Amino acid sequence: MTGFASLAELSEACLHLPHAHPGAAERVASREATLTKPPGSLGRLEELVAWLALWQGRHPPRLERVDILVFAGNHGVTAQGVSAYPAEVTAQMVANFSAGGAAINQLARTANANLRVIALALDEPTADFTQAPAMDEAAFLAAVATGADAVSPDADLVCLGEMGIGNTTAAAAIAAALFGGGGAHWAGRGTGVDHAGLVRKQAVIDRALARHAAVLDDPLMIAAALGGRELAAILGATLAARRRCIPVLLDGFVSTAAVAPLARLNADAIRHALAGHVSAEAGHRQLLEALALVPLLDLKMRLGECSGAAVAILLLRAALACHTGMATFAEAQVSNKDAAHPN
Amino acid sequence: MTGFASLAELSEACLHLPHAHPGAAERVASREATLTKPPGSLGRLEELVAWLALWQGRHPPRLERVDILVFAGNHGVTAQGVSAYPAEVTAQMVANFSAGGAAINQLARTANANLRVIALALDEPTADFTQAPAMDEAAFLAAVATGADAVSPDADLVCLGEMGIGNTTAAAAIAAALFGGGGAHWAGRGTGVDHAGLVRKQAVIDRALARHAAVLDDPLMIAAALGGRELAAILGATLAARRRCIPVLLDGFVSTAAVAPLARLNADAIRHALAGHVSAEAGHRQLLEALALVPLLDLKMRLGECSGAAVAILLLRAALACHTGMATFAEAQVSNKDAAHPN
Repeated sequence: MTGFASLAELSEACLHLPHAHPGAAERVASREATLTKPPGSLGRLEELVAWLALWQGRHPPRLERVDILVFAGNHGVTAQGVSAYPAEVTAQMVANFSAGGAAINQLARTANANLRVIALALDEPTADFTQAPAMDEAAFLAAVATGADAVSPDADLVCLGEMGIGNTTAAAAIAAALFGGGGAHWAGRGTGVDHAGLVRKQAVIDRALARHAAVLDDPLMIAAALGGRELAAILGATLAARRRCIPVLLDGFVSTAAVAPLARLNADAIRHALAGHVSAEAGHRQLLEALALVPLLDLKMRLGECSGAAVAILLLRAALACHTGMATFAEAQVSNKDAAHPN
Repeated sequence: MTGFASLAELSEACLHLPHAHPGAAERVASREATLTKPPGSLGRLEELVAWLALWQGRHPPRLERVDILVFAGNHGVTAQGVSAYPAEVTAQMVANFSAGGAAINQLARTANANLRVIALALDEPTADFTQAPAMDEAAFLAAVATGADAVSPDADLVCLGEMGIGNTTAAAAIAAALFGGGGAHWAGRGTGVDHAGLVRKQAVIDRALARHAAVLDDPLMIAAALGGRELAAILGATLAARRRCIPVLLDGFVSTAAVAPLARLNADAIRHALAGHVSAEAGHRQLLEALALVPLLDLKMRLGECSGAAVAILLLRAALACHTGMATFAEAQVSNKDAAHPN
């Protein structure tokens, strides 16, 4: 996938998207109705299989190749003291991912998924967005292209996560810019700032909103001015997956905020995406509500790294195993519903 | 484990239970604090590992042998037209379990768990409890013993589920008897009765409560009069696991109602049990609240068969993989919290 030459070209791409495959989802529903269980009794597991088929255009859908993409970036706004951890931790955690020592390594293995970590110019933090746009157009589009290029056309499912000290501040700023409410409404404790840190974070967001007031009517300008390279990459990967009809699982607050500008341009641009979980980070639940996303899990996780989405892969595997492996009423010679009261 | 000679003996057993192992849970917490993530950021995954250790008395805990026990029974109350499916389906589904065609077969395989199905006298339904006690003391104690005997001392975790046409009516009756509120408060649509069926079910429960008013102050008498063999077996298995300090995952409304009498005798008797999920069956959420159980999953499932608990096993495996596999801050040379602001 080639990159976009301008924000206008990227914006235009969000408006011309391929259709999903309702026929494949209907074939899921037809088979579900024959399986040895009361109709609908597997709840969201049934919906998940239909969703996979809807986007993959295949019945049964498959989960042979599940890619977890974790994008990492550094943030100039950390100079404002918005994180409990030093900025060096981003690179240290990327090394930890490579060595297999992070939570996401264990979860990817448990979910039988491929983990790929893409570090974006860690030695060039974005600008402190209280002072200047985090990225200029070229830097933003380069990160979008990196994200898009990371999506393999062979993937059956792509899960998108991130690592970046300071990036819950960027995420909250984007959410505030898109949906209103200010820093107090969207800032949370991130990796665990204390009360003073939280107050600083809220003020930083409010200063950034004032600083960039001129661009707040443009979702992509917001993403460039208030985001970060790893958020831009998630936006690019999500759009690339949408253009190839590959289903996407989003992780936590940062991943969700990263794709929110796409949704503001065209709600259809993230219709292939589900929220793997709702995190404990303060703004995530209300951001999901704003985007009409109903999370699969609520386990009070707040780690990022794609950890919540990785756990949600397990639900998809369970759902698909039921759909493909169960016997039908006819095969199992089980009496169907309302045979109790034939009159 | 030998059976109990009387309800009094069973009741007495609920009052003399071994202690859990807080030392093992503390060792979990100590290690969690060293792992490369913000403290507590894996949320309930961290709690799950501590819970396994608390009961297993072992650090790290293990999930090498996970047993799924599905108990099946038939119910005389089906004569009242409380189910959308005929009573023959119980035996047909037991055959389906044996043939590997049910949802629980696929989910047990996905979770790498052993599935065992125990049918309890399917050709002798319990009495219609609008007319007489479902079971006499001997029949109830026999089913309790069957459940207790099904718990292997070698299990690292036991998951308890059921199959029994009519058994959501029994479960709702037990819940109403223990917690008040009547049929309208506790009855749900089960496998999918229509509105008329739901109204019948509510009335059946209210008639049963009136019929057995004399025993409603005795939790075990309630379990015998309003329950069923598979519910009694789940009660017996839960108590047996508690006496051996084996952690238990409960499934849906019926499994939870089955152990509620134990909790009424002594809340400590189900402290080793977690709710794998909250089902879509109407009474389950309020029953969990009454028992102070916070479900792990909320996927609108309402199948029974231990299907919800089986999916929750996946969360436990993910949690344990993180705890045992992650690197420490020292191992990974990652800076720890608040190194950003050392002053």
